Amino acid sequence: MIINSSDYLCDIGHTSANCYQNGSSFRISLSKFNPKEFSDRVFYITVNREFQNFPDNWINLDSHIKIDTDYKTLGVDRRVAIFQAKNSIIADFGSAITVDIVKESRHLGGYIMLGRDEVINGFQRKTPHLNFKNIDSLELNKPPMLSEDALYYGFFHSTSIFINSLSDRYRVPITITGGYSKEFLPFLKSVTYRENLLFENMEKIILSI
Amino acid sequence: MIINSSDYLCDIGHTSANCYQNGSSFRISLSKFNPKEFSDRVFYITVNREFQNFPDNWINLDSHIKIDTDYKTLGVDRRVAIFQAKNSIIADFGSAITVDIVKESRHLGGYIMLGRDEVINGFQRKTPHLNFKNIDSLELNKPPMLSEDALYYGFFHSTSIFINSLSDRYRVPITITGGYSKEFLPFLKSVTYRENLLFENMEKIILSI
Repeated sequence: MIINSSDYLCDIGHTSANCYQNGSSFRISLSKFNPKEFSDRVFYITVNREFQNFPDNWINLDSHIKIDTDYKTLGVDRRVAIFQAKNSIIADFGSAITVDIVKESRHLGGYIMLGRDEVINGFQRKTPHLNFKNIDSLELNKPPMLSEDALYYGFFHSTSIFINSLSDRYRVPITITGGYSKEFLPFLKSVTYRENLLFENMEKIILSI
Repeated sequence: MIINSSDYLCDIGHTSANCYQNGSSFRISLSKFNPKEFSDRVFYITVNREFQNFPDNWINLDSHIKIDTDYKTLGVDRRVAIFQAKNSIIADFGSAITVDIVKESRHLGGYIMLGRDEVINGFQRKTPHLNFKNIDSLELNKPPMLSEDALYYGFFHSTSIFINSLSDRYRVPITITGGYSKEFLPFLKSVTYRENLLFENMEKIILSI
């Protein structure tokens, strides 16, 4: 199919819908998200079971995404993220962090971890006197010397070291995408940041239909 | 000081108080924890600011724990866990996971991460249709092939690989303690499990007073 400049692409998650039109993306909180408000054609994917019965101008791409994998319940956002990947660790940083391994165009499996904000919220319920600091001041190679740092480092170091270790083990480079993925750039090796990876891949999928 | 067989040792956290008497430990939910109900002498440590004004038979060990560190806000439970350690990565698995690095009897810093139950709860708020499986069926060296596995693996693999990488970097073995730390035993290298590490170290501290 051909993509028109008026077409929308939407990726509906558990927290918000992330949409894209003609090169620009925008995020809509699910509490304000109403598919009927889109008058133009929309290509979409969704992992959220609460939204059903989309209007006729909404076209679900789910059935068009073919992935070579034995994974039994691979969410559609992860299938889009790895679409046509050849050799890569693909990490998508959202309210969850998904990490998928593709080697010689085959998906070998993947991981799901809690995202940054969920980790911060988890701590703030337990230890409201500790505050997370801005990541800018952190250095990867030194262990932290303050509890506030220890929380942030615990998240960034352990996640980075894990993703780097997968890249080493499978000998493939890393691709990252998603809201706060840029914060991981200094900590990852052989890494490419692709802000609009999911939308770029949705376009490839549309063109393949 | 001499320890009597009637003495209690208590470690008061954010979720429960873990106590010990004459070689046996027991856990009390904070909602049921009342220091006045202990008639014998109690040596204690606490990270919980809600409990103040302990009865006279409660002896706070905090001021007796000397640690060689530049870390500015090291919680008392972590200071006890590393007391008299020489060369070790010491990981304590509770509602938070703390990981501290001791090299040549000096504390080099440490990390705090969300504990297992907090991670599970964080996911269940977002994706209640996914269930965590029992860890017994997991293998460290294969990436997971089901979303349920992916959650559990994401937690166990990333935490284990992180702790192993610290052990490699600082060339010191690993000591683990805390509720579910045994679940990490198959995944960690050069590891010793010490169920009662905090209480054993509290006894050393008492004897040093």
